[in-house]
Amino acid sequence: MTGDFAQVRSRSMVNVGILGATGYTALELIKILLRHPEVKITALTTRQEDTPHIQAIHPSLHGRLDLRCENLTTEELVSRVDCVFCALPHAASMSVIPDVLASGCRVVDLSADYRLSDPGVYEEWYGHVHTDPTRLGTTIYGLPEIWKEGIREAELIANPGCYTSASILGLAPLLCHADIEPRGIHIDAKSGASGAGRAPKLTTLFAECNESVSAYSVGSHRHTPEIDQVLSQKSGQPVEVVFTPHLMPMDRGIHATIYAKPTREVTEDELLNVMRDFYKDAPFVRVVDHLPGTKDVSGTNYCDITVRVTRGTVIILVCIDNLIKGAAGVAVQNFNLMYGFDETTALIV
Amino acid sequence: MTGDFAQVRSRSMVNVGILGATGYTALELIKILLRHPEVKITALTTRQEDTPHIQAIHPSLHGRLDLRCENLTTEELVSRVDCVFCALPHAASMSVIPDVLASGCRVVDLSADYRLSDPGVYEEWYGHVHTDPTRLGTTIYGLPEIWKEGIREAELIANPGCYTSASILGLAPLLCHADIEPRGIHIDAKSGASGAGRAPKLTTLFAECNESVSAYSVGSHRHTPEIDQVLSQKSGQPVEVVFTPHLMPMDRGIHATIYAKPTREVTEDELLNVMRDFYKDAPFVRVVDHLPGTKDVSGTNYCDITVRVTRGTVIILVCIDNLIKGAAGVAVQNFNLMYGFDETTALIV
Amino acid sequence: MTGDFAQVRSRSMVNVGILGATGYTALELIKILLRHPEVKITALTTRQEDTPHIQAIHPSLHGRLDLRCENLTTEELVSRVDCVFCALPHAASMSVIPDVLASGCRVVDLSADYRLSDPGVYEEWYGHVHTDPTRLGTTIYGLPEIWKEGIREAELIANPGCYTSASILGLAPLLCHADIEPRGIHIDAKSGASGAGRAPKLTTLFAECNESVSAYSVGSHRHTPEIDQVLSQKSGQPVEVVFTPHLMPMDRGIHATIYAKPTREVTEDELLNVMRDFYKDAPFVRVVDHLPGTKDVSGTNYCDITVRVTRGTVIILVCIDNLIKGAAGVAVQNFNLMYGFDETTALIV
Amino acid sequence: MTGDFAQVRSRSMVNVGILGATGYTALELIKILLRHPEVKITALTTRQEDTPHIQAIHPSLHGRLDLRCENLTTEELVSRVDCVFCALPHAASMSVIPDVLASGCRVVDLSADYRLSDPGVYEEWYGHVHTDPTRLGTTIYGLPEIWKEGIREAELIANPGCYTSASILGLAPLLCHADIEPRGIHIDAKSGASGAGRAPKLTTLFAECNESVSAYSVGSHRHTPEIDQVLSQKSGQPVEVVFTPHLMPMDRGIHATIYAKPTREVTEDELLNVMRDFYKDAPFVRVVDHLPGTKDVSGTNYCDITVRVTRGTVIILVCIDNLIKGAAGVAVQNFNLMYGFDETTALIV
Repeated sequence: MTGDFAQVRSRSMVNVGILGATGYTALELIKILLRHPEVKITALTTRQEDTPHIQAIHPSLHGRLDLRCENLTTEELVSRVDCVFCALPHAASMSVIPDVLASGCRVVDLSADYRLSDPGVYEEWYGHVHTDPTRLGTTIYGLPEIWKEGIREAELIANPGCYTSASILGLAPLLCHADIEPRGIHIDAKSGASGAGRAPKLTTLFAECNESVSAYSVGSHRHTPEIDQVLSQKSGQPVEVVFTPHLMPMDRGIHATIYAKPTREVTEDELLNVMRDFYKDAPFVRVVDHLPGTKDVSGTNYCDITVRVTRGTVIILVCIDNLIKGAAGVAVQNFNLMYGFDETTALIV
Repeated sequence: MTGDFAQVRSRSMVNVGILGATGYTALELIKILLRHPEVKITALTTRQEDTPHIQAIHPSLHGRLDLRCENLTTEELVSRVDCVFCALPHAASMSVIPDVLASGCRVVDLSADYRLSDPGVYEEWYGHVHTDPTRLGTTIYGLPEIWKEGIREAELIANPGCYTSASILGLAPLLCHADIEPRGIHIDAKSGASGAGRAPKLTTLFAECNESVSAYSVGSHRHTPEIDQVLSQKSGQPVEVVFTPHLMPMDRGIHATIYAKPTREVTEDELLNVMRDFYKDAPFVRVVDHLPGTKDVSGTNYCDITVRVTRGTVIILVCIDNLIKGAAGVAVQNFNLMYGFDETTALIV
Repeated sequence: MTGDFAQVRSRSMVNVGILGATGYTALELIKILLRHPEVKITALTTRQEDTPHIQAIHPSLHGRLDLRCENLTTEELVSRVDCVFCALPHAASMSVIPDVLASGCRVVDLSADYRLSDPGVYEEWYGHVHTDPTRLGTTIYGLPEIWKEGIREAELIANPGCYTSASILGLAPLLCHADIEPRGIHIDAKSGASGAGRAPKLTTLFAECNESVSAYSVGSHRHTPEIDQVLSQKSGQPVEVVFTPHLMPMDRGIHATIYAKPTREVTEDELLNVMRDFYKDAPFVRVVDHLPGTKDVSGTNYCDITVRVTRGTVIILVCIDNLIKGAAGVAVQNFNLMYGFDETTALIV
Repeated sequence: MTGDFAQVRSRSMVNVGILGATGYTALELIKILLRHPEVKITALTTRQEDTPHIQAIHPSLHGRLDLRCENLTTEELVSRVDCVFCALPHAASMSVIPDVLASGCRVVDLSADYRLSDPGVYEEWYGHVHTDPTRLGTTIYGLPEIWKEGIREAELIANPGCYTSASILGLAPLLCHADIEPRGIHIDAKSGASGAGRAPKLTTLFAECNESVSAYSVGSHRHTPEIDQVLSQKSGQPVEVVFTPHLMPMDRGIHATIYAKPTREVTEDELLNVMRDFYKDAPFVRVVDHLPGTKDVSGTNYCDITVRVTRGTVIILVCIDNLIKGAAGVAVQNFNLMYGFDETTALIV
């Protein structure tokens, strides 16, 4: 019996690799996967040729993972792993993922490359042609609170954008329940600086963004079509949002304040009940009565949501950690579903 | 000749007092007034009985102003000053201002007590009866970019709220020019923690609000009726806004992102021109092409504004320093106008 | 067999209570204990009479722990728990702990009340008489990297101060190995604002301590005699330190920069080896080659240490999270040892 | 008469240029010089070829200075200016300054190139040969509180380093008065992130240095020999310091905590009096009784100092704004002295 059990265990142990291991999302992925009882991290990649040890890249991992970041070929990579978390930038992702999939590995792609279903929309917003267009429209969009179907069987998951997750989780219940209009939705989103990535840039220098708040990419942020698409599909009507992101002087967290027009006279209690019902089986969405702060969910996979009604306007307030529920956490949540593990494994700390 | 000139100078020198000298706004007022060539600060008040030296309250003033904060009677106060800046909380202001005015002193009131023109609206939003109702409706509202008339002759100026200033400065040009609808306006405002004042509170402890963003007073913030009132009066139509304030992890600064519905098809250039024209004589409003950040105006009396049009929505973006343009700076701007000094005196640094 | 195993499990399951559940340390304790497989939190106390739900006090716990904070008598408390974590202020702790111990409960005291061995020293630094002096000198000091002996059997553990832990962990190896002089040690320590607790105070308001660094309690900080005492006992010689704490504009973390005089010519490699050897069995101390930052250990029970030698001075650099390794983490580490659990249980995330 | 006066005025109006106008120090220089009644900024340089407008580089200057940053030859530069503030990096400065001086322009150099008097020490710490060595040792070191002599007549001023200024201002009085030993001095210095400049770097990204404190360049920081040299010269004895800089999660400010050994038994009052006497004619040094914070001097040219004595150790605490008293402010203070203006012109706000 013990022997059999050990075999089951060894069969369920999944070897995973992380493509693009030097960024903030990869660091969070590693931390989560290190506490996952069914995972072994067996490959980390970087374009750097000097194969730095991961603890030189991320000092917080000192003594916790003895692996180097390597510039691996796809062949080398797939020989070591069962599943790949792809934390490469868009365009780079779609240049490597087809070969990884062809080798039989499963992939959770944290880039934007497979999120949109229409190659034309992708080209319009990302400015280049999609090189793997046949997968668009068939790839599973990995927001398990919206669609769990398909995730378990998926070879490839398109992990949602951080702003997207916050926006969709806030809007889906009331749009699906027809409590709010699908047009005239204003999403005012505020994000910590880690959302801009770890590549040195003037705009995310400490002395630039500390003690400052500013909007950016007004009218042109690439999460816009993603929000439109998922909410339209989920609610069965054309949804169009105005999405305005802002950079906050903090490390992490997204706070989305969403303004929508009710379809009829509504009360806060009624809308809170709609939300609670919608998320009754979602272990990571907490519909709360109070006004949530990003600190309440910092470092966690939780999404805290509430709603207010004032002057004929519905205001939905949503908080997530952009690096966890907005990236690495939901990636592992998807991974857990793909491999039949409990959805919350390694995600409640 | 020299003697005469000196006399002119001494006649124009104004003795000022600050009521409630221990807060953040008072500190900024003192710093501005110390560089004002026509002002001498001659009284500072506090309810504390131990008459602390102002440099014990505000160490940054060390060696710069040799005055104690005193618990003065109105008689003592008015014997020393020509003009009073009242930085007391609401309710406290209206309990002292009538006597100060009766003595012949002029007053710039930084509290909310004289901003609203309707005692009923005051009672509704502030929760207590107004004790000096006859002055409501006749007191000059001190936002010089909106109304300069009356400020020069005023005995009493109601200095605007910080959120209010940012919101009104952003909305007035397009509302007055009938470019946007007076209903369905969503003001998403973000403020630094100094806006909550200097009284110790759990919510503004560093370890509470650092690394966090949250909304507060959704649907109930007291600047709401003030914004409605001033914009309605200025634009000659009933304006109603949805105002949502957020607490940001920074000391100072307000960023307002305002969503409005255009009355017809509009372009950004057209709206920017309307704004530039509206503010062509306003030395402190800078209509800019780029997306402003609060750091651009930190420590200054400037208000930076721009506008975008996307998906049929007009988005107005406004930045001010809540303690300067939102409080102490505009107070001195009003004072300059009241006393016939150049509007910008002591305000450009 | 299953039944027996369940009994073993139920016997090893420990019911714990937290006294003073509203502060930052208590929050961290709760989070750690919630992931401890052998613990059930069964009581939370507060002096507030309205028995607030813990998730109203700490919104991040929403949905994670269904307990109210109660103003319990000792009798009520001990009827529910096997072990108490006492997060009360000093003086309050020693007024309740004797009765808790008398009832047979074990206690980890996070206050300063049982750390010093001499009641006279306690009175000198804390300004009041110790009311339970017979336990001083016999209570186990809970810094397991320094002394593990006694912890397993202890009824009462004095959990060390945050600054103390960082200072002692940095200095003990080189003092015990006689590499540095026991006099003329300068500890320059920098702490995040959470170290000052959650009671509203002017000095820890966001707008006071953000964008500022200052020293406090120079020459008078109460962790000084604690550092002296433990290092003297451990190294067998009278140690006297100059300890200077500074408040940093960050939530959490302590960075101690310690200047000491070598007893002879020493090299960095030699000292690093002494440190590595000293901590070879300590799972939470990481002796690193690089200069550590507090972010590397944020949210963890790790202590990162390195050493430099320059101009005849030994500089030891130490980083911990003040709330974890400096308080709640080491408390659970002590608890694990007391109850025979693996030392790292619930502490590696 | 009026005409003559006007001529005098126009003669005293100084045309200044800033080399390297895109950084944080240059921005502060511009802000100070814009309020200087005797200065006109007539040239700004950058190596960028696209001649960006200064308000595109520094949005806070919008509408305040209508100048482009140009890649000027020395000939073009000197034809426009009387005095140059050189905010170039070291090595770049000494490649251009000799020609500027040869043209008759005066120079305040904010780089390190002319601070050290010994070319060998320069080469040892900066890693390259000094190309203008004959000026070393004769260039005036521009810390007016230490030496005013020579500044008025100087063609070239070496503006001190930021850490250096804080360290020297703290130590000079007690070293000169022989109250402390010239050896065994430990300077533990903490700086905001603006001190690292505006070039994008991983280490000064917001998400790296926020919520973190770390030491850097331990034993190797280039301000070390500068501190040694100036204090040795000023106090007439060989001074050697151990200097340890730390990066703080804040924009600006330096806090230096300096540990020294008294030469005899001393009291705090006695040492405070020595300091007050030393700085009795220094308008920007404030010797205070309380423990200063960097926020007290933020945005100002003040240096706040105090001293404590504990356990036989003298602890000097010093706060400056690294960009003002540590760079742009003292540069203008030097400029005022060079041109015979009041030392405080444009520097008290």
